[in-house]
Amino acid sequence: MSEPGVDLIACFEPLVGPAGLISQPDVRRSYEVGARDEGGRAALVVRPATTAEVSAVVASCVRHRLRVIPQGGNTGLVGASTPDPSGRQVVLSLDRLRAPLEVDPVNRSVVAGAGVRLSALNDALGSHGLFLPIDLGADPTVGGMVATNTGGARFIRYGDMRRQVLGLQVVLADEAGSVLDLRGGLRKDNTGLDLRQLFLGGGGSFGVVTRVELEAQCKPRQSAAALVLLEDADAALPLLAHVEREAGELLSAFEGMSGEALARTLAHRPSLRNPFPADPPPYAVLVEFSSARAARAGETPVESVLEACISDWWEQGGSAGLDALFGRPEDLWAIRHSLSEGLRASGRIVGFDLAFRRSRLPDFRRAMIARLATAFPEFAVCDFGHLGDGGIHFNLVCAPANWPTPTRLSALRTMVYDAAVREFGGSFSGEHGLGRTNLPYYRRYTPAPLRALSGDVQRAFTSAPLGVVDFADLGAAAPDPSEVER
Amino acid sequence: MSEPGVDLIACFEPLVGPAGLISQPDVRRSYEVGARDEGGRAALVVRPATTAEVSAVVASCVRHRLRVIPQGGNTGLVGASTPDPSGRQVVLSLDRLRAPLEVDPVNRSVVAGAGVRLSALNDALGSHGLFLPIDLGADPTVGGMVATNTGGARFIRYGDMRRQVLGLQVVLADEAGSVLDLRGGLRKDNTGLDLRQLFLGGGGSFGVVTRVELEAQCKPRQSAAALVLLEDADAALPLLAHVEREAGELLSAFEGMSGEALARTLAHRPSLRNPFPADPPPYAVLVEFSSARAARAGETPVESVLEACISDWWEQGGSAGLDALFGRPEDLWAIRHSLSEGLRASGRIVGFDLAFRRSRLPDFRRAMIARLATAFPEFAVCDFGHLGDGGIHFNLVCAPANWPTPTRLSALRTMVYDAAVREFGGSFSGEHGLGRTNLPYYRRYTPAPLRALSGDVQRAFTSAPLGVVDFADLGAAAPDPSEVER
Repeated sequence: MSEPGVDLIACFEPLVGPAGLISQPDVRRSYEVGARDEGGRAALVVRPATTAEVSAVVASCVRHRLRVIPQGGNTGLVGASTPDPSGRQVVLSLDRLRAPLEVDPVNRSVVAGAGVRLSALNDALGSHGLFLPIDLGADPTVGGMVATNTGGARFIRYGDMRRQVLGLQVVLADEAGSVLDLRGGLRKDNTGLDLRQLFLGGGGSFGVVTRVELEAQCKPRQSAAALVLLEDADAALPLLAHVEREAGELLSAFEGMSGEALARTLAHRPSLRNPFPADPPPYAVLVEFSSARAARAGETPVESVLEACISDWWEQGGSAGLDALFGRPEDLWAIRHSLSEGLRASGRIVGFDLAFRRSRLPDFRRAMIARLATAFPEFAVCDFGHLGDGGIHFNLVCAPANWPTPTRLSALRTMVYDAAVREFGGSFSGEHGLGRTNLPYYRRYTPAPLRALSGDVQRAFTSAPLGVVDFADLGAAAPDPSEVER
Repeated sequence: MSEPGVDLIACFEPLVGPAGLISQPDVRRSYEVGARDEGGRAALVVRPATTAEVSAVVASCVRHRLRVIPQGGNTGLVGASTPDPSGRQVVLSLDRLRAPLEVDPVNRSVVAGAGVRLSALNDALGSHGLFLPIDLGADPTVGGMVATNTGGARFIRYGDMRRQVLGLQVVLADEAGSVLDLRGGLRKDNTGLDLRQLFLGGGGSFGVVTRVELEAQCKPRQSAAALVLLEDADAALPLLAHVEREAGELLSAFEGMSGEALARTLAHRPSLRNPFPADPPPYAVLVEFSSARAARAGETPVESVLEACISDWWEQGGSAGLDALFGRPEDLWAIRHSLSEGLRASGRIVGFDLAFRRSRLPDFRRAMIARLATAFPEFAVCDFGHLGDGGIHFNLVCAPANWPTPTRLSALRTMVYDAAVREFGGSFSGEHGLGRTNLPYYRRYTPAPLRALSGDVQRAFTSAPLGVVDFADLGAAAPDPSEVER
């Protein structure tokens, strides 16, 4: 294919109609570039309105050897939904697949087109007292949430998308654009290989998700939150053990925030209410309890349970505890949710989306702070994250004037990732998934036999490359001799 | 291979030592035949003690073209862990793989060898206030629980094995007996295809599970149960909706029991305490609430929450409600757990392990009762099951004297399965998994493209058939022309 241009429009317009193609350059741009400016230029942006149209488009792309990049809400952070700069890839946006949106309140489930936004899904579920318990800053589509196996801030209570999916409809990248219906609506179905699982976190590389059936949960009717101020981040895990033991099923979030991240955010977001009586503490934890039960007359509300739980910890000598602030959950979450933006306002960021066994978190953090102070003193460690599930957004912030050379930046990234994965047994992408920006780390840290198997599995589903990550290609590639198997 | 006998012992004894081979016929028998007498005769029963020995045994079997049948506790109900009658298959028992058993209380997780029994695992976790929340009548090994993706009676609260697994070690059926370590201990790890998922419910056909890392949950410190007596099984779902809405996260079981199953069990298990003031009701539901929290002084205990919840339902006109009996949970569960044995004592059983969307359950049950009364009047419907997650053990009991001919029996099975799967969108194996006894239904109800894909995926992992179910072979087989795709 030399210059696709006009030919492509002639080829795809009959399949999706004029409304299914985007030609205005400024609108196209929003499909070609992602939330963190990753992306390139597409040969075409196609927006089919039905599964049949998706099938026709994918089949046509396979026949024309055009690589399809499936795209949901394009809210991901690792460049998994945008085309490369070649101008030869086709962006397949699923954002018009908004039908059906059918709630089955007896089954406590919902069927939705892949293009339905999380907020629209929750609007539909809300009138039944239900919700999808994936709590995110962005408003992605459900198809994209399946492809990235989204987790979020209440993972400790509700888990990730894998736990919510009851059924999928997918279109395969073969010459027929085969449509598969993978189980439907059943919580229990042990009748062989569960093919749905390959599409969860598959990043759109195994097939295009066109329809999703999800289990819904009963909405919380009570919640309460506290900010526990600690002298030392190491005290967070004993606090976690205490609240898990004492609060049991009520615990719905346990979010850690470093003092440095808090201080910078408060300094750069003056509109944010500062909850701290003095300077921010060295470390703080947002603890949230919630319940789907309404407190009946005479029953202890969740708020009091939380207060008693924290005060017990105190009385039992809660080491390194400084203070606890209680407040409306939305006010305390406002601080947590402002951190990303606050840090961006305070300097330039190198971000790491890491996850560990909970028991390894303090060691990693302590080691990194010491090593960075020596090797990369221009960076301040401004971490925060979902401690309850071992997740940590390990953000390093630098004054723009001191921003390092590309070589030094690369050395920094390698130092942190190598320590996280090889030394502390962690993950280089805890929740953002795999995309163009972290593909080098997939090559570096995934043992060759596992890459080869992932490639073989993808080959069972696709006869042409699909999505940003081509497992088949990555599996076949000769391993980099510098790679060490973890 | 003509008569393996002596040659095989010479071949495998150097790999596993004399303790790793079973030669006494009576002991062998317990590895050759399963819980429901399915099975045959093995060429050899091998019991390696380490992953390295498993690898050596599997590699040797692949080279000698001997089919390996991995076996855990051999407690399964569908013939997935026993050899066929050919005398040419090798039973690979994992029951000596009991090391390690390492609890990480900070991570709330445990690493266990595949041969560790559920009871031993829970003993080790118990001293930390933790448990594996899979509630079963049997005492399987954790490796077997992974291979069958075991669910159980508290699925509605805690889910199946898929939800608990943090890491796996597996041995592949290739010439090297490759050992793979699939993630470890991380709750969040979105770095590509999650290969663990293929071994969950894979029935041992994708590889031999040798080690498992599991998330553990905080043990309940309070629980309460009620038997709600209903005039009509159809009232069970409105009751479920009520308790989910009012009890939220406290609901830990919702088990339905037909009056017929109850009456027969009470009649044939005279030692069982009869809780009913008169005859058993047409239908009863065991509702259990539990909490990992201890009730503090002044707080409402879970027992009172349950009583209030049921009494609210009553006051709101809980249709078809007859009575509610409260009692110690263990006493009420004793009734539920006696049903299988009670029914076996009352006649001969044709059992179906079905699952549906919850919203379809009443329609299926009503239709089947009517059709069976006409077409198979010699059978009484004695169903019970995990209504909360759509599961139903649809047991049909017949007086031995009226037991039908094999042809009639086969017609009965086909009638029930066809209705369950094709008409009511259910599963022909909700929790027992896939094995020799239900393989014909896999062929019948799994669409050809899905069987082909499952076969292709298995081929990526194995270079020789492994386990009872050979997806590669089942995928390649020309579809039976009588098969209708659901």
